[in-house]
Amino acid sequence: MSFSRSVARALCAALALVAVPWTLAAPPTVAEVIERSGAADWRPLVPADTLVMELADPRSGPIVIELAPRFAPRHVENIRTLVHEGFFDGLAVVRVQDNYVAQWGDPDAESADRARPLGTALRKLPAEFSVPLKGLPITRLPDTDGWAPVTGFVDGMPVAADPRSGRAWLTHCYGMVGAGRDMAVDSSNGSELYAVIGQAPRGLDLNITLVGRVLQGIQALASLPRGTAEMGFYAQPDQRGGIRRVRLLADMPDAERPAIEVMRTDTATWRALLDARRVRREEWFVHSPRHINVCNATVPVRAKKSSG
Amino acid sequence: MSFSRSVARALCAALALVAVPWTLAAPPTVAEVIERSGAADWRPLVPADTLVMELADPRSGPIVIELAPRFAPRHVENIRTLVHEGFFDGLAVVRVQDNYVAQWGDPDAESADRARPLGTALRKLPAEFSVPLKGLPITRLPDTDGWAPVTGFVDGMPVAADPRSGRAWLTHCYGMVGAGRDMAVDSSNGSELYAVIGQAPRGLDLNITLVGRVLQGIQALASLPRGTAEMGFYAQPDQRGGIRRVRLLADMPDAERPAIEVMRTDTATWRALLDARRVRREEWFVHSPRHINVCNATVPVRAKKSSG
Repeated sequence: MSFSRSVARALCAALALVAVPWTLAAPPTVAEVIERSGAADWRPLVPADTLVMELADPRSGPIVIELAPRFAPRHVENIRTLVHEGFFDGLAVVRVQDNYVAQWGDPDAESADRARPLGTALRKLPAEFSVPLKGLPITRLPDTDGWAPVTGFVDGMPVAADPRSGRAWLTHCYGMVGAGRDMAVDSSNGSELYAVIGQAPRGLDLNITLVGRVLQGIQALASLPRGTAEMGFYAQPDQRGGIRRVRLLADMPDAERPAIEVMRTDTATWRALLDARRVRREEWFVHSPRHINVCNATVPVRAKKSSG
Repeated sequence: MSFSRSVARALCAALALVAVPWTLAAPPTVAEVIERSGAADWRPLVPADTLVMELADPRSGPIVIELAPRFAPRHVENIRTLVHEGFFDGLAVVRVQDNYVAQWGDPDAESADRARPLGTALRKLPAEFSVPLKGLPITRLPDTDGWAPVTGFVDGMPVAADPRSGRAWLTHCYGMVGAGRDMAVDSSNGSELYAVIGQAPRGLDLNITLVGRVLQGIQALASLPRGTAEMGFYAQPDQRGGIRRVRLLADMPDAERPAIEVMRTDTATWRALLDARRVRREEWFVHSPRHINVCNATVPVRAKKSSG
């Protein structure tokens, strides 16, 4: 018994050295996929496409948001401008609706007198609900999704697509960030943002512009007290959580930037991770779902290991 | 114009009087379905199957939990006993993991010296992961679900089923309550409970016994600070949210019972509500998902209107 074990151990070590594909070795668990990943499986944050939001409550850690310029270029450009000019600093989380969204912006946005000026940002933008599917580098999921014919990942973001219409779009998974709008489809400009904090409200897909996702720190929004007025707005101004400031990573001194990196979603490692969530190999599981949904696969983040 | 409007109004009123099926009138929105519902579309809480949990924090409202005796009779019976004997009073929420679960019970459960005795409740119960599908009164969804061949509702609870195996089970939707277990499938007894507070972790289905769902007040659990130790456990005992008490509705004086009623899920009204979420008729929506997932349909609760 101990002999065959040591043989097996030596064999495994040898196989690991030649970077054996997952299919030849015993299929790994989620933890093992992450543990065995290499430097090339991770990527740095993009300074021009990353926001760092700090709430007034000092107990909240930084909220890191990755923007999605490939899907909402006009909104992302406007948000960069708003953030660069300090638009969000001192504003507030105005709405937290349980199992739905946390929303932040200018509590006085509707007031002609008191609304904070948008600076050089545009007041109105075209809707950016979908993009052409053609040429989009989707890591497709083989799994059935009731909401869309195709689902997968692009740039670490959950996406859906319909080959018949030739369109693709970001999907409303937990942590996704969108730009609030009124009745008109072109009434969003990125000055009012929301993050999903509950079961994916996929019925919002193709109805509103998603602009990115919370990469780290979503719990600071998801654990805020729920607003008690209609739609989760706070009934009293002093119930709102204040925003200390929002900065673009590119505007932050190197020393203050979050030292994290993100797992790539266009690699064999990412596909192995999805498979490890599909077929659960941890001892605790007595049943494997043999299925994964685009909203049940969170992209791992880790402390930066690579130099640079 | 005003003539034809008054004609239309009179016609609509007449149609309403003869309880016209939804398909003949203009299909309603979600709000309209609820507004038009009748007394028979609602049911009272079942005193022997409803728990009311109060947290120590006086700002939290009562958390109303409906148990599911049809799916987990042994666990429900044990939980009734535990609650009736005051087991949970003074214990704590020990774990809150973002986008996953809030879990409560005895922080000292693992300690031979300090663990609170279970009283007359059983220490060990068989796993109750699924029940026979045959004879189960499921209001089936026509919509595709990637996780299971059949989904729908029984007794207001989200369920899934597989006709090939002949089994049905409660599904891990937002707000569902389960009984924590260790490695052994028969290691749960209902003294450690969790509620889902994020994207439905459907991969847990058929791996653990679900015992019911939070009907009202889930936000009190979902807005708790997340634990920072592994799996969302609180690193320090004083970070835990205390539980003031948990009572069975049957043990509560009438005056203290929550005066609410629940929409039935075996009616034409419930099916109309699902359809109104599938095909969005509110002006804001420019795209209809034409799909609904079993975890995206929350059963409405309202202040009690009927006598009794």
